[in-house]
Amino acid sequence: MSNRNPQLNKNGELQHLLTTEGLPAAILVKILDTAESFVGVTERDVKKIPLLRGKSVFNLFFEPSTRTRTTFDIAAKRLSADIFNLNIAASSQTKGETLLDTVNNLSAMYADIFVVRHSQSGAAHLIARHVHPEIHVINAGDGSHAHPTQGLLDMFTIRRYKKEFHNLRVAIIGDILHSRVARSQIHALTTLGVPEVRVIAPKTLLPNMVERLGVHVYHDMAKGLQDVDVLMMLRLQNERMQSANLPSSEEYFKYYGLTQEKLSLARSDAIVMHPGPMNRGVEIDSSVADGQQSVILPQVTFGVAVRMAVMSILVGS
Amino acid sequence: MSNRNPQLNKNGELQHLLTTEGLPAAILVKILDTAESFVGVTERDVKKIPLLRGKSVFNLFFEPSTRTRTTFDIAAKRLSADIFNLNIAASSQTKGETLLDTVNNLSAMYADIFVVRHSQSGAAHLIARHVHPEIHVINAGDGSHAHPTQGLLDMFTIRRYKKEFHNLRVAIIGDILHSRVARSQIHALTTLGVPEVRVIAPKTLLPNMVERLGVHVYHDMAKGLQDVDVLMMLRLQNERMQSANLPSSEEYFKYYGLTQEKLSLARSDAIVMHPGPMNRGVEIDSSVADGQQSVILPQVTFGVAVRMAVMSILVGS
Amino acid sequence: MSNRNPQLNKNGELQHLLTTEGLPAAILVKILDTAESFVGVTERDVKKIPLLRGKSVFNLFFEPSTRTRTTFDIAAKRLSADIFNLNIAASSQTKGETLLDTVNNLSAMYADIFVVRHSQSGAAHLIARHVHPEIHVINAGDGSHAHPTQGLLDMFTIRRYKKEFHNLRVAIIGDILHSRVARSQIHALTTLGVPEVRVIAPKTLLPNMVERLGVHVYHDMAKGLQDVDVLMMLRLQNERMQSANLPSSEEYFKYYGLTQEKLSLARSDAIVMHPGPMNRGVEIDSSVADGQQSVILPQVTFGVAVRMAVMSILVGS
Repeated sequence: MSNRNPQLNKNGELQHLLTTEGLPAAILVKILDTAESFVGVTERDVKKIPLLRGKSVFNLFFEPSTRTRTTFDIAAKRLSADIFNLNIAASSQTKGETLLDTVNNLSAMYADIFVVRHSQSGAAHLIARHVHPEIHVINAGDGSHAHPTQGLLDMFTIRRYKKEFHNLRVAIIGDILHSRVARSQIHALTTLGVPEVRVIAPKTLLPNMVERLGVHVYHDMAKGLQDVDVLMMLRLQNERMQSANLPSSEEYFKYYGLTQEKLSLARSDAIVMHPGPMNRGVEIDSSVADGQQSVILPQVTFGVAVRMAVMSILVGS
Repeated sequence: MSNRNPQLNKNGELQHLLTTEGLPAAILVKILDTAESFVGVTERDVKKIPLLRGKSVFNLFFEPSTRTRTTFDIAAKRLSADIFNLNIAASSQTKGETLLDTVNNLSAMYADIFVVRHSQSGAAHLIARHVHPEIHVINAGDGSHAHPTQGLLDMFTIRRYKKEFHNLRVAIIGDILHSRVARSQIHALTTLGVPEVRVIAPKTLLPNMVERLGVHVYHDMAKGLQDVDVLMMLRLQNERMQSANLPSSEEYFKYYGLTQEKLSLARSDAIVMHPGPMNRGVEIDSSVADGQQSVILPQVTFGVAVRMAVMSILVGS
Repeated sequence: MSNRNPQLNKNGELQHLLTTEGLPAAILVKILDTAESFVGVTERDVKKIPLLRGKSVFNLFFEPSTRTRTTFDIAAKRLSADIFNLNIAASSQTKGETLLDTVNNLSAMYADIFVVRHSQSGAAHLIARHVHPEIHVINAGDGSHAHPTQGLLDMFTIRRYKKEFHNLRVAIIGDILHSRVARSQIHALTTLGVPEVRVIAPKTLLPNMVERLGVHVYHDMAKGLQDVDVLMMLRLQNERMQSANLPSSEEYFKYYGLTQEKLSLARSDAIVMHPGPMNRGVEIDSSVADGQQSVILPQVTFGVAVRMAVMSILVGS
């Protein structure tokens, strides 16, 4: 039995979490099931269990992200791990060898988990190949490649509200081209058996040959939202506006911004998701963001539980 | 029984600490009494008690302040809470809605206490109105509005050295106009029954109709310091110099800087306080700052105990 | 028996660790021996012992250094201490009195250990003279003066690989002039009885009268490396290139960069050390840095153990 998947150890257990691509459904489901047991911890009076006591988690953020860093920080401390937050200026990372020297140095201090955020696609994979075998790497976002814990918390949210994956129509809407979140969502959705995944975006915000990922492409919200159960909105970054050949955010909102009117085209019990932070009035209208079908804040809550699950599975494996 | 005070819950217990204004004397005294029991913890060999074990405290600093952040950090850890330090760049907070989205997101991660520092007056109140009911907000300084834990640690210091409030003459000296500290001090002093609170400042550094706060106004140190028991100096910020129409900090020091000579006009057992950081040679002379009547460093020590008291009362209520 | 050494208390025990200069050999050996027992902790499944539970360590970094700060952070947490990381902008430290006010304030919050990093030589000594007697100061690097924990971890590394000090030839190579590391190494090596310490550098990178420190001076690698047991490389900072009158880093590498060829001039069992971060291709060739004689990564591992040892000895004394 060959084992070429860098995320699995020789027993087929999770060794690193780098991407949702290529992960067996059983592993994804195990993470979601484990996360269920942690949702309760977060809501308890004593928000802490001793599962990772004495373990060291290094938050290696080569790209700043207060929000994502904080959710890992919270997840680690609620498992009683010691966490070390390292904001490593990209400026000191000009040569490839420097990244590896940094990683080798941190490895030499011993750790159980490296949480890695980097602006370059593939950075977490590179690090995973070079760390001591005792160290587990979690990709917290690398370039436009992958953001697997975001993808997993989205799967957790969908399962909570829709119970099953095998009967769903899911639409991912917005800047697919630059989105590591979209890639992680698509791989997880197809692995978990969602029969119909749609992407809705202007041509300029879609990768070449996106259909190869197993998705159906729509350029028109009216058609794309028909009979959809789950709407996964993406954040439109202002700096992408130009490359999208869109004259303004108002123009984008007109065609792709999610309003109550457009939402009414989906199934009446459809849920609306967003990875945050939202651009209200650009990709989503406030009435939808704060509306009854929005599950955007529960996503955040579940994000802590899912990250606790990933950490506890990695260190336990 | 109506309950319009946003700081109290329906049982009249402390729900948030946003300002000393409008807080019943019984609550202020309870905080001071509780703080007494924590002064000892700080001086012990093991500086830690398990009172807030498993609780999550978020330090939300929208405005940088190493000093104040550190005192809350210390207070939380000495109570065994988990603390998360978030320095949220003001730049990402341009729209009002963004602040609330940030707060909603952090609420969704579950917390017991938000410590909030913000450059805009009213920010802590706004946040307190929007958080989950399980979350308690402590205002760690909002614009020129309030800094209640500073006000409370000052009350603690006065009580330690003067035993009673009802027989004191207290003078607050310096830039009253821009000082959130001064406002929090004045409300606490009058609530606790100090019969005579004086403010001493040039006209340009006094708010309009400051007398309405129940204070006596002096523009002259010689008169204002007569028979005073407590001198509360304020920090003069250089950028305020211009608005004060003062040609230089030397000029300010000449008229309002506290020297041994001016101090001798007060009661011989008067104590000198300063919230720090001091501008030596501007609002206070080094010989006074380091002199026998100075209680400036004890203020810092008591500040940790008072913040421990506030946290433990909030989470216990 | 007089006691003028500011690092020792009246019983001759370590009170502060400010420099390796003037420390008795018995104290150095005690630190190394204690560190031996901590190497195991770092490699254990539960990387934590309760030795400093309830103690407060303040990381006072007046000069940024993610790497050094992190090793102290790790050392403190693995001893179960509470650690407070304060990055104090040099900008707020323009006046000498301000530094002391900052230190007095932090002292008033009570702490057991101050770890101090400062760009000015003597800063840690100044702080040690002014803190409460209960507070122990560890110098984590002051200007070009001293970096004693680096020096000690280097001694630990040498003892691990060479067993004894009394029969060694050690060469320190590179920018001796600006290096606090070199000074701390030289004092520790001579105190521990190394009979021959060499420095190899161009004249422009050597301090005046460096021979007074008890070292032999070489300007030529071919001669200086002969029969050497230990090579301690120093980092060449680009900004020093000019003062060294060297036209380029290639030129420096040609004469003083450690290649396999130059290394072959030393003893065949010589070890190669570097305090990091390395400039590959400037002071050291990658084939040497990653080669069999390199002990650069073990240095990092031992660095955590040595810092744990220093902290536990200080607080225990």
